Amino acid sequence: MNKKIAVIGFGNIGSGVVEFLYKKGITGLELYRVVDIDLARKRPVTLPDKYLTTDWQPVVADPEVDIVVELIGGIEPAKSITLAAFENGKDVVTANKTLLAEEGNHIFQAASQLNRQLGFRASFVGCHSLIHEFRQAGTAAKKFRRIYAILNGTCNYILSTMAREGRGFSEVLEEAQKKGYAESDPSDDIDGRDTERKIRILLGLISNSYQVADAFPVEGIRGITAQDIQYADELGYSVKLVGVIEQQDGVFNVGVHPALVPRVSLLGSLEGAYNGVELEDEYGIISGLIAPGAGTYPTADAVVKDLLDIAEGQVMPKPSSSESLVLGTAGDSERGCYLRFSVVDQAGVLAQICEIFWRYNISISAVIQKEAVIEEFVPVVMTTYLAREADLRAAIADVDRLDVVKARTQIIPILKANT
Amino acid sequence: MNKKIAVIGFGNIGSGVVEFLYKKGITGLELYRVVDIDLARKRPVTLPDKYLTTDWQPVVADPEVDIVVELIGGIEPAKSITLAAFENGKDVVTANKTLLAEEGNHIFQAASQLNRQLGFRASFVGCHSLIHEFRQAGTAAKKFRRIYAILNGTCNYILSTMAREGRGFSEVLEEAQKKGYAESDPSDDIDGRDTERKIRILLGLISNSYQVADAFPVEGIRGITAQDIQYADELGYSVKLVGVIEQQDGVFNVGVHPALVPRVSLLGSLEGAYNGVELEDEYGIISGLIAPGAGTYPTADAVVKDLLDIAEGQVMPKPSSSESLVLGTAGDSERGCYLRFSVVDQAGVLAQICEIFWRYNISISAVIQKEAVIEEFVPVVMTTYLAREADLRAAIADVDRLDVVKARTQIIPILKANT
Repeated sequence: MNKKIAVIGFGNIGSGVVEFLYKKGITGLELYRVVDIDLARKRPVTLPDKYLTTDWQPVVADPEVDIVVELIGGIEPAKSITLAAFENGKDVVTANKTLLAEEGNHIFQAASQLNRQLGFRASFVGCHSLIHEFRQAGTAAKKFRRIYAILNGTCNYILSTMAREGRGFSEVLEEAQKKGYAESDPSDDIDGRDTERKIRILLGLISNSYQVADAFPVEGIRGITAQDIQYADELGYSVKLVGVIEQQDGVFNVGVHPALVPRVSLLGSLEGAYNGVELEDEYGIISGLIAPGAGTYPTADAVVKDLLDIAEGQVMPKPSSSESLVLGTAGDSERGCYLRFSVVDQAGVLAQICEIFWRYNISISAVIQKEAVIEEFVPVVMTTYLAREADLRAAIADVDRLDVVKARTQIIPILKANT
Repeated sequence: MNKKIAVIGFGNIGSGVVEFLYKKGITGLELYRVVDIDLARKRPVTLPDKYLTTDWQPVVADPEVDIVVELIGGIEPAKSITLAAFENGKDVVTANKTLLAEEGNHIFQAASQLNRQLGFRASFVGCHSLIHEFRQAGTAAKKFRRIYAILNGTCNYILSTMAREGRGFSEVLEEAQKKGYAESDPSDDIDGRDTERKIRILLGLISNSYQVADAFPVEGIRGITAQDIQYADELGYSVKLVGVIEQQDGVFNVGVHPALVPRVSLLGSLEGAYNGVELEDEYGIISGLIAPGAGTYPTADAVVKDLLDIAEGQVMPKPSSSESLVLGTAGDSERGCYLRFSVVDQAGVLAQICEIFWRYNISISAVIQKEAVIEEFVPVVMTTYLAREADLRAAIADVDRLDVVKARTQIIPILKANT
C-alpha cells in the first residue's frame, strides 16, 4: 500500500524530491500531486500534466493524499497549508526552518492535538540524524549539558576560505556570492539569524517544549578580520560561527556568536559549507556529527527519509510540552576569551590593560604582540582563562576608555568543544 | 502499559542498565527480572531478591516478559537465549558484537521470520546513531560509496597517546592496561578483530544482507612505531586504525588496517577512546559522527534507547536479505601510501628505489630523509600518489630485495577521508 505524496513548492528542493519519487522510484511512496504557482518555469525534471496544479487548497483536502510535503518556505501560506493538512488527517514533511522557529508553538501543538506526524529533518539538513537522538528526550532520563553547533554553511564557507587563503571578509563574501555559496542579500546567514532559527528548533527538541523561546544574543561574522583568524590559528584555534546551548538545572544559556574552537577538533576542522554539532550529555559524554548543511540533494534526501519513516509508522520526534523555557542571563556564563586590542605603539600600554584585568580578577593565558603597525596603531592579542562574561565585558569597557586604545576591542569567546 | 524487561547478565553494563531502569526510572519501561550465574558478587547497584535469579530459561519463557536484554557476550548461551526469546514472542536488545558478526545470519533471519524486533545499538556504541540512518538502506534509493571508521577505543587511545607523547607502542599499551583502557589480553583490540566485527555488522546493514561475509584483510597496530606517527604528523596526517568499506557497482572492498588520515579532519582529530565514522553516499555527500566507543554508561544508554524504541513500536533496523555479498579483490583498489624504508646510509639508494617505482608507474608525492641513524640504517619516508595496491605491493617486494634495504618496508595506506 503506497503512501500518496503531494509536493507543494516545485523549486530546487521540490525538483530533487520529484527526482527521487518519480524518476528513481522509492518503494512504498507514490508521487500524486505537485503544486506550484508557476508551472511554466523550466525545471531539471519534467512531469506529465496530470500531476501538476497551481492550487494547493483542493490538494490538501483531497482524501487520496496521505502526506503533504511543504517546500514553500516562509510563514504564509506554509502555515495554513500545514495546519489544513493536519486538520484533513494528513501527515506533513517540511523543510521550513522559519515556520518551525517562529510558529513552532502553533505547528507542534496542532500536530500533538490532531495526532499527526510532522517530519522536519529537511529544516535541519546538517544534523538531522540528531533529531532521532532527541526524539526520546521527552521520555528518556538523559539531559544535554551543552550543544555547540556550526549550523550555517555560508558562514562556514566564508570563515574557512578566509582562513585558508588569508583574505578579508568582504572579498570572500563577494566571491561566495558569485559562486552561489551566499545569497545576493546574505544578511540572514552572516548576521546569524539562520543559525538562530536552527538553534530554536534544537532548543525545542532538547527541552521538549514547543513554546517559542525569548530572545537571546545573536551576533554574526561581519566583524571577523583576516587578522583575527590568523592570530587564532597561531594560538591553535579556528574561528567559527557557533550556536551555543548550555543547560544547568533546567536553565538554558543560549546564544549565537563567532567563537574560537580548537583547530584539531570536530568543529575546528570543519571546512566549506558543512555543518557540525557537538553535544555533551549530563554524564559528560561527548558526541558529534558533521553533514552538508544545505543543497538540493541532501535536502531532498532528508525529505525522503521523513516520508519513509512516516510511511513505516515510525514515531517522529516533536516537542510536546507547553511549558515555557527558562533562559539564563548571558553575563553569568564563564568563558575564556580571545581579545584583540588596537593600541598606540608606546611603552606601558600592556601594563595599563593588565592592571584593569587584575582589578576584575581576570587571568591572562597568552599574549601576542607584533610589530605590524596597522593604521597608526598596533594589535595586541590576548587570551584569558575562564572569567564571568559580565566581568569581562566590564573590564573591556574600562580598557576601551583608555587614551592609548584607538578602536573597540574585538572579543571572541573560546569554546573548548572537544574532549 | 509498561514493557517488562528481563536483563540477562548482571556485569558492568547490566548494572548500568539496572541503574537506569530501577534506580532512575524510565517512563514506559519496568525492570522485571535480572539473571546472572553469580548473584553473590558485589555490584554498584543492589536489587531486592525478587528480581534476581540464576536461571535464564524460565525467564525467557515467562509470558510476563516483553523484552529480553542479552548482556552476556560471546556465542553461547547468548545465541540460545536470543533465539528462545524470539520463539517465545519477545523482542531482544543486545550488546553482543561477536554474536551479530559471526552468527548474524541465524539471528537476523530468525528475527525476520518470527517478526521480532532486535535492538543492537549497544553492540555499536560508538556510532549507533548510524544504525538509524542505515535502517532505510534496504528501501531507500541511496547507496553508500565508502565508509571509513575508527571503531576501537583501545587502539585509538594507544595511537593518540603515542602521537601526543611521542612514546612507543609497547610502553603505551602497558600503561593503557594499567589504566583499564586495554584488556590484560589486548589482542582482540590491537590486532583489529574487534574492529572487524563492527565492520561486519555495518556491512550487513548497508548491504541489507544478513549473510556472514567472506574473510577480508585485517591488520592491527602492533607494527606502528613512534617514528611512523611522527613522520605522519610532519606530513599533516594522523595514524589511525581504520575499518574501510568501499562499494562500487555492488562489489564491496572491505578491510581493517592502520591508515594515515588528514590530521585536521573528523577522523584525524579523534583523541582517546573515541570512535568516529565518515561516510560518503552515492551522490558524493559526506557525513560523519563521533561518540565514545565503550564504557558502562554509554553502552547502558544505548540499551535504554533501544528499549524505548521497541516500547514505542519503532521499526528497528536489520538486514533482511539472504543474498550473499560480493567482496572485491584488495589488489584492485587505488590508494596513496606512506612508505618507510630502512636503508643503509649511502649514495644512490634513493635512486634505486625511485627506479623501481618508475618501472611500476608509481608517482612519489613527498620524501623525508633525515640524518637520524637507527641501528645502523636510516629511515627514508615517502608518500605516493594513487596507485593500484597490487602494483605497490609488487614494487615494495622488489625494493625489499635490494641489498641496501635492511628491514621490511612499512606500508600504511593514506585515506583522504574528509572533504
